Amino acid sequence: MTFGLNLQENGNHHLFELDPRLAADTTPITQLDRSMVLLMRDQTYPWLIVVPQIEGLRDFDDLDPDDRNRVGAEIDRASKALKQIYRPHKLNVGALGNIVEQLHIHVIARFPSDPAWPGPVWGAGERIDYAPGELAKTCKALQAALK
Amino acid sequence: MTFGLNLQENGNHHLFELDPRLAADTTPITQLDRSMVLLMRDQTYPWLIVVPQIEGLRDFDDLDPDDRNRVGAEIDRASKALKQIYRPHKLNVGALGNIVEQLHIHVIARFPSDPAWPGPVWGAGERIDYAPGELAKTCKALQAALK
Repeated sequence: MTFGLNLQENGNHHLFELDPRLAADTTPITQLDRSMVLLMRDQTYPWLIVVPQIEGLRDFDDLDPDDRNRVGAEIDRASKALKQIYRPHKLNVGALGNIVEQLHIHVIARFPSDPAWPGPVWGAGERIDYAPGELAKTCKALQAALK
Repeated sequence: MTFGLNLQENGNHHLFELDPRLAADTTPITQLDRSMVLLMRDQTYPWLIVVPQIEGLRDFDDLDPDDRNRVGAEIDRASKALKQIYRPHKLNVGALGNIVEQLHIHVIARFPSDPAWPGPVWGAGERIDYAPGELAKTCKALQAALK
């Protein structure tokens, strides 16, 4: 699935451009009202990234109240999609942005059997990409769950 | 400042009890509409924890839409209080809960000079408590900023 991820007009928002490091590590899953949803291509963790398509945001509190509520609902949708497919023990939700400053919210399915447990996943090991067939299957399942 | 943190009635919500591990590592700062705001007693990072006082929540998507919006606004208030006082380079906002499962949202002021930078703070080192005078001063500043 492809769509105009890198340059997108959103109502009266300015032109939005996805950070190239986020684009390089992820595959687009779907387009929601305020955000794009990306899959982190790391087969170690079922891992979505919600990126509000609003130019110039760095921190969660840069969202205005209406956008914050909408993005909150989209984080909720991403969370429920991961739960439906993977039945994780716990979800981790986080907006860090110490390396990629553009506001993006990680939503990660966690299991006591995963290699970083109970620590955070960020910086916990090398990203291991999906095999092509596995990637296509994963994207399809997530797209269905996010409908 | 003390208030009835451990056993609190919230409208038509059930009785809420703060996880004892959260209570042990933090000092209460203030009471908002849906959440209590706690200070993590670690002088290495200006670090607030927002805890929705609703019994039985584990993940961010366990919040119903109205509570999610209100808690989102309270995360915003905690974020802006930290920014006002500390002028951080970046804020980290995260709901992990791999160890303490009760829903709690970390709001942390980050600096390129801090010891965990650019990694996450969780699990990055031992907690170093504030000296008593410093703790009182920090609580007072945060309470004023959260008014």
